[in-house]
Amino acid sequence: MLERRLSRMQEALQRASLDALVLNPGPTMAYASGLSFHLMERPVIFVVPPEGRPALILPEFERTKGEASPLKPTLFTYAEDPAARAATFEAAASQLGLPGRRVGVEPLRMRVFELRLLEAAAPGTQFLSAEEVITAVRVAKDEAEVNSMRHAVCAAEAALQATIPLLNPGMTEREAASELTVQLLRAGSDSELPFPPIVASGPNSALPHAVPTDRRLQAGDMLVIDWGATVEGYISDLTRTLAFEPVDPELARVHAIGLEATRAGRAAVRPGVACAEVDRAARQVIEAAGYGEFFTHRTGHGIGMEAHEPPYIRGDNAETLVPGMTFTVEPGIYLPGRGGVRIEDNVVVTPQGCECLSSAPRELRGVA
Amino acid sequence: MLERRLSRMQEALQRASLDALVLNPGPTMAYASGLSFHLMERPVIFVVPPEGRPALILPEFERTKGEASPLKPTLFTYAEDPAARAATFEAAASQLGLPGRRVGVEPLRMRVFELRLLEAAAPGTQFLSAEEVITAVRVAKDEAEVNSMRHAVCAAEAALQATIPLLNPGMTEREAASELTVQLLRAGSDSELPFPPIVASGPNSALPHAVPTDRRLQAGDMLVIDWGATVEGYISDLTRTLAFEPVDPELARVHAIGLEATRAGRAAVRPGVACAEVDRAARQVIEAAGYGEFFTHRTGHGIGMEAHEPPYIRGDNAETLVPGMTFTVEPGIYLPGRGGVRIEDNVVVTPQGCECLSSAPRELRGVA
Repeated sequence: MLERRLSRMQEALQRASLDALVLNPGPTMAYASGLSFHLMERPVIFVVPPEGRPALILPEFERTKGEASPLKPTLFTYAEDPAARAATFEAAASQLGLPGRRVGVEPLRMRVFELRLLEAAAPGTQFLSAEEVITAVRVAKDEAEVNSMRHAVCAAEAALQATIPLLNPGMTEREAASELTVQLLRAGSDSELPFPPIVASGPNSALPHAVPTDRRLQAGDMLVIDWGATVEGYISDLTRTLAFEPVDPELARVHAIGLEATRAGRAAVRPGVACAEVDRAARQVIEAAGYGEFFTHRTGHGIGMEAHEPPYIRGDNAETLVPGMTFTVEPGIYLPGRGGVRIEDNVVVTPQGCECLSSAPRELRGVA
Repeated sequence: MLERRLSRMQEALQRASLDALVLNPGPTMAYASGLSFHLMERPVIFVVPPEGRPALILPEFERTKGEASPLKPTLFTYAEDPAARAATFEAAASQLGLPGRRVGVEPLRMRVFELRLLEAAAPGTQFLSAEEVITAVRVAKDEAEVNSMRHAVCAAEAALQATIPLLNPGMTEREAASELTVQLLRAGSDSELPFPPIVASGPNSALPHAVPTDRRLQAGDMLVIDWGATVEGYISDLTRTLAFEPVDPELARVHAIGLEATRAGRAAVRPGVACAEVDRAARQVIEAAGYGEFFTHRTGHGIGMEAHEPPYIRGDNAETLVPGMTFTVEPGIYLPGRGGVRIEDNVVVTPQGCECLSSAPRELRGVA
């Protein structure tokens, strides 16, 4: 499998006229090499040449891990003294013929730290965004990848199911988020969650990217829960909106609109359709109901090994859907100071249309 | 508190002759601004000028979050279309007078993504490492920070205590790590752990940065458990080595040596001592016992808001300790293919010497 991924990546590099791809720790490195390193203050770089064997620059004390890679990369190791790194990077760059070439990097992942080491080791090299190369290889998931995501959705749904009976007024958002995390692990998620669960209550639910606070859940609150699991390196990312009685009638109406918008978004998904059309389908429902100005973000984003990856379901994205793409559909409506609603599903584009991976109840549930 | 941090940071910028500091989401942004953003595909930049009010570049839909900051930064927001970002970055850079200046960045945090946006918005600007400026401000913790770390150590120790009775042969490393994660949350850790717990058994315990696998724990295994909690944004990072009977006599001896090395490292800590001396104190014990070549990493690293930060306890680091510095002391001995031992404590430098924050039993405990 890794060999096949490597050769697809090398073909994509050749098409993009790049002389190499340099990856630091993260999902793309794991996808391409099977190697999982923490992103830390010791640089680790996986180098994919346009053909032939890849290379790996890493600390000497991690050599065993590099040697275990089935791709058998050429290893360049450095000792603990940070001053020793430059020579290792230079040796690697020169042996791999990087100086003066066009080398691809992952802009959302590669840090100034690694970039400066590479720039010093490979004078005259242009470090260019390889985002398109990487997306081309990773964006359409195969059946094994989709299966892992199914498991990640199942684990997340089981965790919410187990958490709902434990929610009660007086509990803080942070406590509710911790409980949900515990249930995610119990349900089989890897301990590295895709993101810490969001539990946003009352006025905080009107913040699209709220962080759980010490605010206590209370009567009349909307409760936006945005959470996901990681299984076999693949993630789920769901949102459901609950409420503590008595529910503000306008917010209940807004919930029904959000529900219809999510449904309309899902219904628009099929091969050949532009990302923008999916966004438009969801957005029109909210605009038609008079809440357009309160839907302040895009309709969704790709998911897979990462919680945010292409394709982005935005009104300005003309990119068309192909089978195997997996993404969220998550319109939201946020009334500042009062409360918000978001309902988020995970879908996969199929040759026929769309399969929705998530099935947890979406209607407004009053709790406690 | 944020005002005091801001003015200390501004003084440090002036001393370093930097015209501004630009921070992307992470601990330093949180430390300086109180703002917590996910690191994602939408850039968020906090700009600290050498004097006066800071600024914040962020998505329009996050404006409310920016407005809530007690530092009242000048806000520059951009719309969802990625093409809209360049104009916002240019307006910010020009209004803040960044073009052609010397601007500090955090190399371990800032990505090529944000760097390229800033480079385009501020032609002729040099983006330089501000690591020393940031370290100068953050490295010595105040009493409130140390107290949070005490709580993080307590939570971690309680979690291990609760997990040990649940460990048994036949369970996988991954299951043991999940159980420990659950117990960390039960013990009061924030759901964003400093790092996913490491449980490394048998031959895997000889890998210093092992990732939990599906290997089942079994008789005769050494069991290296490296874990930590996050409380109030501060972390703990501990390691204990357990064993399943019967224990290989050499590995038991190695454990006793590791224990003595950790003790010697802690005993060397006091103000004015070089980081290298602490490393040497721990390393000498292992070298004298004939296992020097199997201690393949530095003795420790700073901790605080991050799991790895200055000061680094390395043999080549002449930097001297000052009160308030907090770091790990974690010598290890790794016999490839057989097993490893690591015992890790968390210490704070006091005016008188050293306070060890961790107290969980360190001796070799046989489990099950």
